[in-house]
Amino acid sequence: MKRFTLDYYLDGLRSKDTVVLARAITLVESSRSTDQYLADQLLNEIINNNAQSIRIGITGTPGVGKSSFIEGFGSFLIQQHKRVAVLAIDPTSQRTGGSILGDKTRMETLSKNPQAYIRPSSSGSTLGGVNNRTHEAILLCEAAGFDVVIVETVGVGQSETLVNSMVDFFLLMIQPGSGDDLQGIKKGIMEMAHGIVINKADGDQAKLAKRSKSDLLNALHLFAASDTGWNTRVELCSALEKMGFAEVWEMISEFRQQMFENGLFLQNRIDQNLSWFENRVNFGLMMQLTSDDRLSEVIEKTRGKVKSGELSVSMATTEVLDMVRQLLS
Amino acid sequence: MKRFTLDYYLDGLRSKDTVVLARAITLVESSRSTDQYLADQLLNEIINNNAQSIRIGITGTPGVGKSSFIEGFGSFLIQQHKRVAVLAIDPTSQRTGGSILGDKTRMETLSKNPQAYIRPSSSGSTLGGVNNRTHEAILLCEAAGFDVVIVETVGVGQSETLVNSMVDFFLLMIQPGSGDDLQGIKKGIMEMAHGIVINKADGDQAKLAKRSKSDLLNALHLFAASDTGWNTRVELCSALEKMGFAEVWEMISEFRQQMFENGLFLQNRIDQNLSWFENRVNFGLMMQLTSDDRLSEVIEKTRGKVKSGELSVSMATTEVLDMVRQLLS
Repeated sequence: MKRFTLDYYLDGLRSKDTVVLARAITLVESSRSTDQYLADQLLNEIINNNAQSIRIGITGTPGVGKSSFIEGFGSFLIQQHKRVAVLAIDPTSQRTGGSILGDKTRMETLSKNPQAYIRPSSSGSTLGGVNNRTHEAILLCEAAGFDVVIVETVGVGQSETLVNSMVDFFLLMIQPGSGDDLQGIKKGIMEMAHGIVINKADGDQAKLAKRSKSDLLNALHLFAASDTGWNTRVELCSALEKMGFAEVWEMISEFRQQMFENGLFLQNRIDQNLSWFENRVNFGLMMQLTSDDRLSEVIEKTRGKVKSGELSVSMATTEVLDMVRQLLS
Repeated sequence: MKRFTLDYYLDGLRSKDTVVLARAITLVESSRSTDQYLADQLLNEIINNNAQSIRIGITGTPGVGKSSFIEGFGSFLIQQHKRVAVLAIDPTSQRTGGSILGDKTRMETLSKNPQAYIRPSSSGSTLGGVNNRTHEAILLCEAAGFDVVIVETVGVGQSETLVNSMVDFFLLMIQPGSGDDLQGIKKGIMEMAHGIVINKADGDQAKLAKRSKSDLLNALHLFAASDTGWNTRVELCSALEKMGFAEVWEMISEFRQQMFENGLFLQNRIDQNLSWFENRVNFGLMMQLTSDDRLSEVIEKTRGKVKSGELSVSMATTEVLDMVRQLLS
């Protein structure tokens, strides 16, 4: 990878240069220690450049039309004089070993718009979960003047929790369906959602979509409001007919305003930062400790015995921690 | 604390002596290193003594009638020739600094029954959460021949997740109510529940309870079934009129049988053991590392700067891990 100076990155971001933005994200994702050093400097310089942005996480089962929605919704936002960045997050990408094919093809109009920036999930990022650098990529996008940063989950599983830990507004996208069809929604994801958008509310499905909305509202009504005082909203939308974008944006804007007024918007970002810090420190500690051969051997051996029922959890923990004590003394 | 030998504990548990059981739980909760050594030995000896037991977690907002239910349900189970242990879990007890007042008074009949054992939340247990020893207390109860171990959440907050991590069946108790009244239920808790029991389904409230049940079933119908294939059930009950205990027990027994047949019952206990091991090791590592003054100082300082926005998470993590590297080398 060609190396650039800190000033190159800072100037480029300030002048909203998306080529530099792309390089900065690549730098942050790099596992080379010299790159990491520069990345730390860069990230520290652009701190606090983001109070005006809104970070939106979008999830939904494959086929629900997330890409078409983001394509249409992103174009709508650009008409409202916003600049829109789209990041994809995929904790499984280490397994597939490559970038998500066709991200730019999927969002053809948006990807050609100079007010938009689309970043496919990087093949360079190792390890999903806690070592994922999407959080840093968000900060870089904001430093490059993007007002709206959309983080899209790709694949299924634990990415929803990860995305939720770094966005302001979490949007769940579903398609019209009766109760049985909606069974793909995990309750835990429903719980995270600030808004549910029923896509494909057009043509033959328009009526079904309305019924889905009222079913969902009834179901949501049974549950406790979140601690923030925000009640999950449900909106209809058709990416095909470019219908409902304004309503979705209004929902997000109202959420943002309400959270600003009760002080929870920035509080949430601070809390997210602190738990992100804790997670990364814990992860780093574990990596350093388990890179010690003796310790990793003890952990593996005792873990196997806990699994087979030969060793109690209590005794296994003691054995591992005794070894750590030896290493540290 | 008077000290006893390993054989004293083992013989006592084998002969189902509840005085010895109480002392064994106290031993396991002790933070003295000699006690911890003996506790490890004891826990390792009683491993695998529990395949026939069922562990039931019970949660619900204060006033819903958990104690009356456990009193009645426990007595019902004893009539079915079961021995019933009741443990209370309260991660906030470190703050209140004492045992839950009146646990035995709340369950007067049950506490007098020789086939029952009630353990109030111990004032001796330090730190809630990961350092909590309720999981070990369950194992000791099982070693003392208790077939049914009920773990009751006391207080509100994170205890539900903790209880869920150590039981086979998670039961949410609510009272009859319309949609609005049910708003006290957090979606996340709803997600964990294998069964929901509507208590106080008697007298004037019997009709309302039936409607609550159908409302709940409709709501649950909208969500995905759990990975285990078990669909959350809803049962009516009146602790006052001793009504519904058989149905609740049937639900739990069916769950147990189904999980045994698909192999998930023991698998879940193994998984619980492994994550409990991981949590305790991680917690122990953090305790050892942060007991180093220099490191805890760096963590505290950088954490403060992350909070105030002076330092990026990335840079803060690097600073902490550099210090760890120094300590380990």
